[in-house]
Amino acid sequence: MFTFNPAFEAPTGSPIRELFKYLTQPGMISFAGGYPASDLFDREGLDAAAARASQQPTLCLQYGPTDGLAVLKEQLAHLMARRGTPCTPQELLVTTGSQQGFDLLLRVMVAPGDVVLVEQPAYPATLQALKLQEADVVTIPVDQDGLNVDALAALLESGTPRRAPKLLYTVPTFANPTGATLSLERRMALLKLAARYRFLIVEDDPYGDLRFSGAALPSLLALSEQVPGSRDWVVHFSSLSKIVAPGLRVGWMLAHAEILRRCVVAKQTVDLCSSPWTQAIAAAYLASGALERHLPRIVEAYAVKCRTLCDALDAQLAEHIAFHRPSGGMFVWARLKGGQNATDYLRACIERNVMFVPGAAFYKDNIDPAALRLSFAAPGVADIETGVRRMKQALELI
Amino acid sequence: MFTFNPAFEAPTGSPIRELFKYLTQPGMISFAGGYPASDLFDREGLDAAAARASQQPTLCLQYGPTDGLAVLKEQLAHLMARRGTPCTPQELLVTTGSQQGFDLLLRVMVAPGDVVLVEQPAYPATLQALKLQEADVVTIPVDQDGLNVDALAALLESGTPRRAPKLLYTVPTFANPTGATLSLERRMALLKLAARYRFLIVEDDPYGDLRFSGAALPSLLALSEQVPGSRDWVVHFSSLSKIVAPGLRVGWMLAHAEILRRCVVAKQTVDLCSSPWTQAIAAAYLASGALERHLPRIVEAYAVKCRTLCDALDAQLAEHIAFHRPSGGMFVWARLKGGQNATDYLRACIERNVMFVPGAAFYKDNIDPAALRLSFAAPGVADIETGVRRMKQALELI
Repeated sequence: MFTFNPAFEAPTGSPIRELFKYLTQPGMISFAGGYPASDLFDREGLDAAAARASQQPTLCLQYGPTDGLAVLKEQLAHLMARRGTPCTPQELLVTTGSQQGFDLLLRVMVAPGDVVLVEQPAYPATLQALKLQEADVVTIPVDQDGLNVDALAALLESGTPRRAPKLLYTVPTFANPTGATLSLERRMALLKLAARYRFLIVEDDPYGDLRFSGAALPSLLALSEQVPGSRDWVVHFSSLSKIVAPGLRVGWMLAHAEILRRCVVAKQTVDLCSSPWTQAIAAAYLASGALERHLPRIVEAYAVKCRTLCDALDAQLAEHIAFHRPSGGMFVWARLKGGQNATDYLRACIERNVMFVPGAAFYKDNIDPAALRLSFAAPGVADIETGVRRMKQALELI
Repeated sequence: MFTFNPAFEAPTGSPIRELFKYLTQPGMISFAGGYPASDLFDREGLDAAAARASQQPTLCLQYGPTDGLAVLKEQLAHLMARRGTPCTPQELLVTTGSQQGFDLLLRVMVAPGDVVLVEQPAYPATLQALKLQEADVVTIPVDQDGLNVDALAALLESGTPRRAPKLLYTVPTFANPTGATLSLERRMALLKLAARYRFLIVEDDPYGDLRFSGAALPSLLALSEQVPGSRDWVVHFSSLSKIVAPGLRVGWMLAHAEILRRCVVAKQTVDLCSSPWTQAIAAAYLASGALERHLPRIVEAYAVKCRTLCDALDAQLAEHIAFHRPSGGMFVWARLKGGQNATDYLRACIERNVMFVPGAAFYKDNIDPAALRLSFAAPGVADIETGVRRMKQALELI
């Protein structure tokens, strides 16, 4: 009866969100969601921040500037400086989660049929946003050192795709879903390619602070200072969702002024402004120094959970499941060595009251049906061990 | 250096937001913004609601469902029932302000070149959203009884525009900027037209609860029950921004399930979910009954401000400015009788430390250069009287 835009004629929702219904199954242990652990939220610090924010009721309750509250932008600039990428508040746009930043960028820059490069496997909401924007998505393979920059270089050199790519999306540090981190060498090479072929690198960095081991690598944004001509081609997204709380819906983006200015215009019609109330809470939280106190606690907790999961997989399932130990983030990317279909395996696992996300959700093409993503962030340590035992039992069902 | 999408090549921001810089001029009295009065926010009620919400930290801090928190949707369904439009929570989508609802609807339904009908003068962010979506906007004139439905009928009957319109946007109750309310007769006629010509009526209703005088008219959504075939063609937006606080960024939409489902899919990629924290606060606020206690207070306060403004205009400027007394909302739409240009007049007013929005901001075409919008919501009563005196003095400058 209604005529919808082509991309919305028969839309499919998030394949991960489709799994939510099983979460309520009694006793379910889930490695599925990309959610941070609720019991690790800094409730005390956030309550204190909320109390401080409420002392400025007009700031919290009234409309705010489209680009974000000045008090928050100042704190985010400090945070970026601590991460090795000093910037001014004017270079930042506060978004309703970093998801919004990517969406704004697509609106401003990507028309139907435009070529967009995406690492693969990739964050499903990225693939979905590109599909709804009717972009021509070209996937670039990923290995344990992140995006295969040689494959990208070969592609660009070969002159395919025919249209010059507009942008490339990557999570270079502790990627979702692979947990992989792009090596320094590849980072430099990627920046050179962006400068040479003039495409935007979209560096999505929600997990970078969650490092368990090894030395921190500079972000693409930080490294761009060293690669002539590359700085303007980096758009950087980050978020408080994984390190503070997703419920704040506070993300931010850094981009060339010409891009940022247009994203602000787009945001005026998209939601006028992100909630000034949660922005004020986030600003008070960051200003209090609570994040510096909180981060080591969650990094330690996630490190223990990650080790628990990987040790259990090694102990119980080494014959059946291959994986790489990530050095940070929230995800272990694994593969059924026997080549079984991970969706069949998930069905068996749900019967045993354990869940994960089949890898297919992270592919646009060339799906590896044996791949699967395990998130160790949300479940407790004991549940992680129990969950892996159940996964072993479930293997017998397929 | 970058290639932007056509709509973003040379974007212009909100003409109203461009005026913000003058707001900081010392002693400025502003009739410009569409902001609710900060001193009328129910701080006590909202503090209590925030305290209650914080007792469910996981609900506030974790990701929430894309369609909105169940506790909030339940309260919004009660609110809609009190407004004469009972609905189930499943029929509602919570949005980041109602601005987001319109944007989601455009994404799902309006392709570049699609015909969209808009009352004129109209809310500028609506015109801007349609421009960025590259819709073919056809304006329908408005008088003191709201949208001129006869003109619309004539247009539709004449077979222009050539393409069937996808939707029609209207604020039928206490419109922005005109303050006009669509008569009952016109409401019925409009619903019949929608059913006959099969276009969506987008009923934007942020101000409906702010009635100072006269009997409430049923919404288009409510009336659609009486007009066969029209119910499916009404999409209804509302918001807590004008009656509680914009900083919550809580709006909602009601639409046919086939439309709503697609808007949820769009929202997954737009911001995943609106802030569950402010949703939980809004739910606690509504559940406490605070809105029913608060509404009469703000309605009375805005009624006094509106009367003050209209009385002062009558007393000081009757010879020079024509206007209609609105029976609710936040706006008085006025016209310089001498046909002077309102933008020139604004310049003179800014020199005298008083501001309004020139009417041009509310037009896509056929601009009335002598029109202007005055909002009485934000300034205090004494400032309203002073502001009108200054407007009189400024008249001598042009």
